[in-house]
Amino acid sequence: MSQTDSIEKTSVSPPPDVDTSTLGVSSPAPIPASTELRSHTCGQLRASHVGEQVRLHGWAHAVRDRGGVLFVLLRDRYGVVQVTIGDQSPKEAVETGKNIRLEYVVGVEGTVTRRDAAVVNLEMKTGEIEIVATDVKIVSRTKPMPFMIAEQGKGKKADTKKGNQKNSTKTEIAATGGASDDTRLKYRYLDLRKPTLQENLLLRHRATMATRNFLDASGFIEVETPILTKATPEGARDYLVPSRVHPGSWYALPQSPQIYKQLLMVSGFDRYFQITRCFRDEDLRQDRQPEFTQIDLEMSFVERESVLEVAEGIVKCMFAKVLGKQIGEIPRIPYKEAMDRFGVDAPDMRFGMELKDITDAPIIKDSDFSPIKKALDDKGMVKAMVITGAAKASSRKVLDGYTAFVKSYGLSGLLYAKVGNDNTLNGPLSKVTGDKTGFEDFVASALNARLGDVILVACGTPAAVNAGLGRLRVKLGQENGLTATGPEYAFCWVVDFPLFEFDEGAGRYVSVHHPFTSPLPSQMNLLEDESRIGDIMSDAYDLVCNGSEIGGGSIRIHNPEVQQNIFKVLGISEAEQTEKFGFLLDALSFGAPPHGGLALGLERCIMIMAKADSIRDVVAFPKTTSASDLMAGAPAPVSSEQLEELSVESTAQEEKGE
Amino acid sequence: MSQTDSIEKTSVSPPPDVDTSTLGVSSPAPIPASTELRSHTCGQLRASHVGEQVRLHGWAHAVRDRGGVLFVLLRDRYGVVQVTIGDQSPKEAVETGKNIRLEYVVGVEGTVTRRDAAVVNLEMKTGEIEIVATDVKIVSRTKPMPFMIAEQGKGKKADTKKGNQKNSTKTEIAATGGASDDTRLKYRYLDLRKPTLQENLLLRHRATMATRNFLDASGFIEVETPILTKATPEGARDYLVPSRVHPGSWYALPQSPQIYKQLLMVSGFDRYFQITRCFRDEDLRQDRQPEFTQIDLEMSFVERESVLEVAEGIVKCMFAKVLGKQIGEIPRIPYKEAMDRFGVDAPDMRFGMELKDITDAPIIKDSDFSPIKKALDDKGMVKAMVITGAAKASSRKVLDGYTAFVKSYGLSGLLYAKVGNDNTLNGPLSKVTGDKTGFEDFVASALNARLGDVILVACGTPAAVNAGLGRLRVKLGQENGLTATGPEYAFCWVVDFPLFEFDEGAGRYVSVHHPFTSPLPSQMNLLEDESRIGDIMSDAYDLVCNGSEIGGGSIRIHNPEVQQNIFKVLGISEAEQTEKFGFLLDALSFGAPPHGGLALGLERCIMIMAKADSIRDVVAFPKTTSASDLMAGAPAPVSSEQLEELSVESTAQEEKGE
Repeated sequence: MSQTDSIEKTSVSPPPDVDTSTLGVSSPAPIPASTELRSHTCGQLRASHVGEQVRLHGWAHAVRDRGGVLFVLLRDRYGVVQVTIGDQSPKEAVETGKNIRLEYVVGVEGTVTRRDAAVVNLEMKTGEIEIVATDVKIVSRTKPMPFMIAEQGKGKKADTKKGNQKNSTKTEIAATGGASDDTRLKYRYLDLRKPTLQENLLLRHRATMATRNFLDASGFIEVETPILTKATPEGARDYLVPSRVHPGSWYALPQSPQIYKQLLMVSGFDRYFQITRCFRDEDLRQDRQPEFTQIDLEMSFVERESVLEVAEGIVKCMFAKVLGKQIGEIPRIPYKEAMDRFGVDAPDMRFGMELKDITDAPIIKDSDFSPIKKALDDKGMVKAMVITGAAKASSRKVLDGYTAFVKSYGLSGLLYAKVGNDNTLNGPLSKVTGDKTGFEDFVASALNARLGDVILVACGTPAAVNAGLGRLRVKLGQENGLTATGPEYAFCWVVDFPLFEFDEGAGRYVSVHHPFTSPLPSQMNLLEDESRIGDIMSDAYDLVCNGSEIGGGSIRIHNPEVQQNIFKVLGISEAEQTEKFGFLLDALSFGAPPHGGLALGLERCIMIMAKADSIRDVVAFPKTTSASDLMAGAPAPVSSEQLEELSVESTAQEEKGE
Repeated sequence: MSQTDSIEKTSVSPPPDVDTSTLGVSSPAPIPASTELRSHTCGQLRASHVGEQVRLHGWAHAVRDRGGVLFVLLRDRYGVVQVTIGDQSPKEAVETGKNIRLEYVVGVEGTVTRRDAAVVNLEMKTGEIEIVATDVKIVSRTKPMPFMIAEQGKGKKADTKKGNQKNSTKTEIAATGGASDDTRLKYRYLDLRKPTLQENLLLRHRATMATRNFLDASGFIEVETPILTKATPEGARDYLVPSRVHPGSWYALPQSPQIYKQLLMVSGFDRYFQITRCFRDEDLRQDRQPEFTQIDLEMSFVERESVLEVAEGIVKCMFAKVLGKQIGEIPRIPYKEAMDRFGVDAPDMRFGMELKDITDAPIIKDSDFSPIKKALDDKGMVKAMVITGAAKASSRKVLDGYTAFVKSYGLSGLLYAKVGNDNTLNGPLSKVTGDKTGFEDFVASALNARLGDVILVACGTPAAVNAGLGRLRVKLGQENGLTATGPEYAFCWVVDFPLFEFDEGAGRYVSVHHPFTSPLPSQMNLLEDESRIGDIMSDAYDLVCNGSEIGGGSIRIHNPEVQQNIFKVLGISEAEQTEKFGFLLDALSFGAPPHGGLALGLERCIMIMAKADSIRDVVAFPKTTSASDLMAGAPAPVSSEQLEELSVESTAQEEKGE
């Protein structure tokens, strides 16, 4: 009772100006069943409904009192509609209407009426009509809101889509009503009222529907694999679940259904898919979540190209059905070429500004300049990148910023120069040539640099040169708006990865993908030659869009002897093989078909489609970077009885006690 | 190498007779991509392909050597096809063919050829043709199989569908190759090669596809809710996951997404669904699994009938699309009526043999027979059930068996009689009347019993009488084949459940469904009257098919004060409310719409559609009754480093040490 009173006292004044142009998640309006409390949804009404008596329910999105006439914008998932409570409404409706506050749930009966021409609002889908209320009731009241739902003013489309970087702070505060991230996560169910988030989740739903229907039509069967399973060696940390029935034993939550889907191939399921939750107990960055969703598939009796075709089919179908966009042919780029041209294995191909390997250019080879000389002596690499027309804007401070940036990737510095008249170089880079001549030609022909360009040159280990220049390229592409000049979605496949890389720390080879990845068929024989192990290319592939890896997979090993050879290279003993992968090795010995597959990160795909900056904007109930659900209050302590039943003890309390 | 040798030595002789009539999971054959290793699938070839050169891959399902001509049945998910390797094949193919053993993966190139009329096999979909091999290669070899895949002989459709109870042991051994359940679970990937299990999982896939498309078309959005969440109070035990980042804190795996879906309604998602995994750490019966899948949905601004309509839509769509069966109107039966007529709240309505409450019949009321008298004095109940025409078959031993059966449900015994000439009663039941007359009329008119029928009468507490007779009815219905005489699928809704039941042990009321279930709108006021609490009916509903509950749900409470009143009745303190349900109560205070929903047990639905006896037959990788995955070897011990990182310790080892 006292709670109701306090609600009554809360006076929330309507916002001066509410942007309605973006409201209403576009969706086929459901046909309300006869027994529903509504005859129509709010977003559904149009001029064609004029004259109809309707029964609506929704949230008070805005409330305005104009000289005794009350205007309520009623909102549901399908849009907003204006309800007018005034002279034409019964007295009781007017009285009730006065008590309506923002975000109250309100039921309205009324007549759909054409608006006067002067107040038709073409930015609003229902803007040609209004509902003249004949009955109004308050269905649910609202405590003071921690933040507002209605987005203020015009043109601020989304709280999560940063338009202009410079104004982002101001925009965000306006869009979130000043609420902190934590407040928004604590009241996630209120944040989810915002049309942007609803639109993102609807997009996600549509994308998975499109995917499932595409795969179903392609002969794939969705098979659910266990969540309570055994630790699989995907490289990340497992979430563990103590078994009550088997004290001292633990389940692991799957990092992926990798082994199970390979077993399904051994079972003869031929084409499997699953849109499924995966779990990794990692320290989270902004774009990670401890649980995430994968579009996971596997096929038998195929080579690489068949898997790529299916994955492209998914992506093309998703983009066509959800966004109405056609994705063209997706190029295949060997890993080596990606590293050469872009310095990274997930190249952003919306723009050029490619790296150029000038290690073997005579002008470099012959240089006496000590950083270059040292790099070459250490079997290092020299690469250049040209920033077109950037000379004027590239102050010393800006260029020093680039140097600081690349240092974080292991480079000792960056040589730069501005191209002057006649391709003369102004800047430290000119020291490379010393007294020698002919460098101007090199600038023009090999680097294709012109007056007013900036040339950046890095030298050092290939890893540092590629990472430093590659990441700088991406950063500059985004900051200088180059990404906006190319295609909206630039996909590519990166193929022919190395099978192994040498882990200096561990002193042994490790798998670049996972240990079930097959070498390229042509390279299978290299496994026999210990000196060539590092050269072996795998039959693995990554799908990249706009510089983000959105999926990857491989043709798997289906021969148990090859699998054991791989384990041997990885230094996994036979005992360990049996303990960790015994059932997979066993399965491969009972007639395994050649098979391969792939997984797409669903959230990555949706982020790209929704142009969302954070994974949180495409997950209904996300966790924080410390893996907490601030709304539910998870994780949380549990009773000692529960732990006792599970034969486990927490050591955390003891530590506290000390 | 040694392994290969041992494989070579394994000689698996082809079965004398392999049933192929049921092979080939019916599915639209996929169009193999140009880069696949196949031109066609095995099951796809028909007489229309005669003359074509094809490239096939599959498993050797049967191998027969007929005087130098080798017949190999090649199997894939789509069916089997006969490959003939003989005079028309190159010498190399013949030599390779000789090494083919059962379950080897074999690649074949050959010509589709029409079979001689004499050997056309119309039971086999590809039975009009054979492949005359021009090239044969062994792709993968097979260790000695732990059991056979090919089902022997004719007419034994499935290892998991018991045909004739009497012969089931023999049949099962034949179908499973004598393998124990544990062996089959350990080599689940081999068991999954059996067409019956493949068919069940394909059916499951089709059912979820049909469900998703139906719900999508009805305006529902699939939203994924967290798996790492907070313990929710569904009544069962939670699986817990220690948090590494927050030592001493735990996530719980969801028993259902109940609270999250209610929050989505508060967010305005209007129509939510999810086909999602749920987890319960219970002691398992044969038809339970620690993780199972729910078709979960929730709707706003609806009353009960709208939810039932949607659920019926799912079921009708599933049965129509997957089985081609039309499900008619589904009756709504109040809980009380279900208990009266069937003694159970999930009635099997495929047959009659209903219970009759004869407590108030004068002949009972006036009886001096002590069990009856005692039951009536204790405010008990007397019910009768008539087994039509069973007199002859009901030996003393059989009837004693019934008595033993009902005793396990708390009855002290069963009064029975056979109906003789002129409705005379032979048996202990005749003692009820003592010297009184007129009982014959009662038998004929009230019980509708006739010469040769058996009448069973139970007296005692309503709970014991209903459970005893109700369960006996189901048992007899199944054993006497009554279930086969009615409709194939008899659905009903059970509605108007009690909201609370009194838990004698705890000395307080508990929720019959869950604490978020709304009372029937008409009964909301009874909450104020402490003496009427037990009478309140809820707005909950269960969907029942053939005597199994396959789903259930309710209209929820959307008013925070009503929710708090319910908690009060349940004896949940305000502190406990806040701790356990704080965020739900909070959410209800921010403008919650009226809402309700339901969940269908996916495995239950598939079991009914597939006519499977066990949930294991509709789950790809099931666990045992001790919640073990025998194939993966989960749960398993983990390293002490892993536990240390999670700040937990197992107390199990210490116990072992003592």
